[in-house]
Amino acid sequence: MDGSLGKAYLKNYIASTEGLFDAYIQEKLHEADTIDPLAGELLRRYHKTAKLGKKIRGALVVLGYEAFGGKDLDEILDASMFIELLHAGLLIHDDIMDWDDVRRGLPTLHKQFEEYGRSVGILGDAVRYGISMAIGAGDLGFYLSWDKLMSSGFSPNRLKRISEIYSKHVIRVVYGQSLDLTITNLIRPEKEILKVHKYKTAEYTGVLPILSGAMLSDEEQPEKIQAITNFGLSFGWAFQIQDDALGVFGEEEDIGKPVGSDIREAKNTLFTNYVFEKGCTEHKEFLQSVFGNKDITYSDVEKIRKILKESGAYEYAIDLGWDYVKKGKELIPLITQDKKYQNILESLLVYMMERAA
Amino acid sequence: MDGSLGKAYLKNYIASTEGLFDAYIQEKLHEADTIDPLAGELLRRYHKTAKLGKKIRGALVVLGYEAFGGKDLDEILDASMFIELLHAGLLIHDDIMDWDDVRRGLPTLHKQFEEYGRSVGILGDAVRYGISMAIGAGDLGFYLSWDKLMSSGFSPNRLKRISEIYSKHVIRVVYGQSLDLTITNLIRPEKEILKVHKYKTAEYTGVLPILSGAMLSDEEQPEKIQAITNFGLSFGWAFQIQDDALGVFGEEEDIGKPVGSDIREAKNTLFTNYVFEKGCTEHKEFLQSVFGNKDITYSDVEKIRKILKESGAYEYAIDLGWDYVKKGKELIPLITQDKKYQNILESLLVYMMERAA
Repeated sequence: MDGSLGKAYLKNYIASTEGLFDAYIQEKLHEADTIDPLAGELLRRYHKTAKLGKKIRGALVVLGYEAFGGKDLDEILDASMFIELLHAGLLIHDDIMDWDDVRRGLPTLHKQFEEYGRSVGILGDAVRYGISMAIGAGDLGFYLSWDKLMSSGFSPNRLKRISEIYSKHVIRVVYGQSLDLTITNLIRPEKEILKVHKYKTAEYTGVLPILSGAMLSDEEQPEKIQAITNFGLSFGWAFQIQDDALGVFGEEEDIGKPVGSDIREAKNTLFTNYVFEKGCTEHKEFLQSVFGNKDITYSDVEKIRKILKESGAYEYAIDLGWDYVKKGKELIPLITQDKKYQNILESLLVYMMERAA
Repeated sequence: MDGSLGKAYLKNYIASTEGLFDAYIQEKLHEADTIDPLAGELLRRYHKTAKLGKKIRGALVVLGYEAFGGKDLDEILDASMFIELLHAGLLIHDDIMDWDDVRRGLPTLHKQFEEYGRSVGILGDAVRYGISMAIGAGDLGFYLSWDKLMSSGFSPNRLKRISEIYSKHVIRVVYGQSLDLTITNLIRPEKEILKVHKYKTAEYTGVLPILSGAMLSDEEQPEKIQAITNFGLSFGWAFQIQDDALGVFGEEEDIGKPVGSDIREAKNTLFTNYVFEKGCTEHKEFLQSVFGNKDITYSDVEKIRKILKESGAYEYAIDLGWDYVKKGKELIPLITQDKKYQNILESLLVYMMERAA
């Protein structure tokens, strides 16, 4: 099975929630603008970047719900936005941490507010102002997320359970981020990279959404919960691996941020790490020469691509991604007997890797 | 009535929760250390500063609960920590925003991690690293807070209601912070100062804790909810005014941060604003000369104190604080008929202003 069914499910999710998302922010804008136009400005800019997400996590909430037999589609579509609201907040903070200037084709929030600060004649340092406002914009995302989840129509019992999982996972994201930031050596062992990626991305991208959706549905069977958790982790790994691949092999207009930013920021991935560990001297030396260099050119990126392919790094990491797809697939019969959702689970999982081809 | 009964209530709250607070973090440290010693480091440093809080908000949660007839003291003491966990997270972000170096007598988290980054030989800019880690530490506080609240033993129904109030108020704090940051003129009209303080501090210091506590108790009467909300707002205002007074008239060892930081950061308070609006030319000119100056000396602070007293600014703002105490007192009979809690409510409110004397 290919990823087309999963891709269509995602597309349909985006179409079904676009209006809901805008309407939710519109409702919140009323209060913000009443407090002060600046509060409205903060929320509008948050919204503008939040709405451009790939929405994979939101779709996964709905899929987990449906796969577990949930039937109230309106309710889950509405509640599922909690994860996209959170995700946008985390990305805003992540962009400050990584000094990123562009996200989803727009200037990052801290760059936007740096510019805004200059335009209104802010007193003091505009760069610092931009960072400060963006810290607030991220915090805003966290609390909008909570608001959306907790004001949803699901039973308070279920919401309480989801909340516990939710906070547990975001705390792990914070730990993962702190590991990702604390780079004292350009080259890190693969084990360490895997640990960072697990906590920083894989768990919260895969496990948190699909498990939340499942637990919001009517069924509660421990063995199914375990299976969907493991499926979510495989999903998150496939996502992470293709995301790293796209970060080098994609184009800026598709990925919404500059190509090669991991290399600029000296963030070792499974791809680059393979070269450092197993590549030839020439490949290693070139990679080391551009690693952590903020000024690498497009032709450097092209050379990196060539090296990743020639060294076998690309094949190695992509194969690992497909291994996760395989592992995930095997769990599907334990999650649901419904052929329809079995197919969507499989296809969406495959789609995670197909995006990287 | 004076503030001694309230002060004793607060002291008792601190004594009753100290061990609980440490035990909660200890439990969370287990997971953090298992993930990575660095994750443990992040949580330990968060804990070290979080535990030093004045705990006024936590005590207010318990008082709101008891005033509304709540009887499960163990449960509310445990749950009340959610607000202190949140507060610590907000302060960590606030300290980044305000470039503050010292909090509660310790280096602020971003300064701590700047130093930590240097000590471990972090690659890249240590200042930026410190900020990034502190953003994470603040986020950690938010999700620990959520975890603490939602894993408490109160009924899911009540927790759902509190969650909605909680997110609403923190969103307002973010708006207040953004207003506080966006300073384009050293001197701002009083109306604008009041607006910033209302959203940034007064509501979330007074209303959020006492209302959460009340709503976690068994009683739910709309008119009492209104009264306790208004009491909370008066409480928050009294707190804010005395906090601003202590910021100039206190001593570093008592307030845990450098004296005069509002003036250094060009943050106009009701005190300084009065001088700008109604002071004599000499007073105005001196204040303007030190406003926003990072290098003011202790003798400058002493001169500012003299000016605030001589100009009538001190009396004006302190009187306003006492007006709030008066307004708050009038609401107490609408909150509870229990003389014991009436007295504690009144005394704790009075204590907010007595701290500034």
